[in-house]
Amino acid sequence: QELRCQCIQTQSDFISPKFIAKVLIIPEGAHCNRKEIIVTLKDEKLICLDPEAEWVMDIIKKIV
Amino acid sequence: QELRCQCIQTQSDFISPKFIAKVLIIPEGAHCNRKEIIVTLKDEKLICLDPEAEWVMDIIKKIV
Repeated sequence: QELRCQCIQTQSDFISPKFIAKVLIIPEGAHCNRKEIIVTLKDEKLICLDPEAEWVMDIIKKIV
Repeated sequence: QELRCQCIQTQSDFISPKFIAKVLIIPEGAHCNRKEIIVTLKDEKLICLDPEAEWVMDIIKKIV
């Protein structure tokens, strides 16, 4: 179980779903006072997304 | 990068968001021909959810 926030900064620029291999959503909790959305790209890069950016929810809806 | 599907079976029964520590969404791809949603519960248990179950999307929307 992570004991702190995972993201130091978040990216708000759009990322096309075709580059996304995984989306990890971590609700806020005792370990971190903000929700975090971390995508793993197909090139294995990890990027923290801005949970407030509208396109983020759109992408999640598209994937699910 | 996983080389195959992660979920052998999925659970359709409702899980309250308060028990969920993480939600991992894996779009279908070369490695697996179906999308997968894996939640980590606060007791560290891993459960594969049915992506078609309506409450799953509702929970994701609630968390994001």
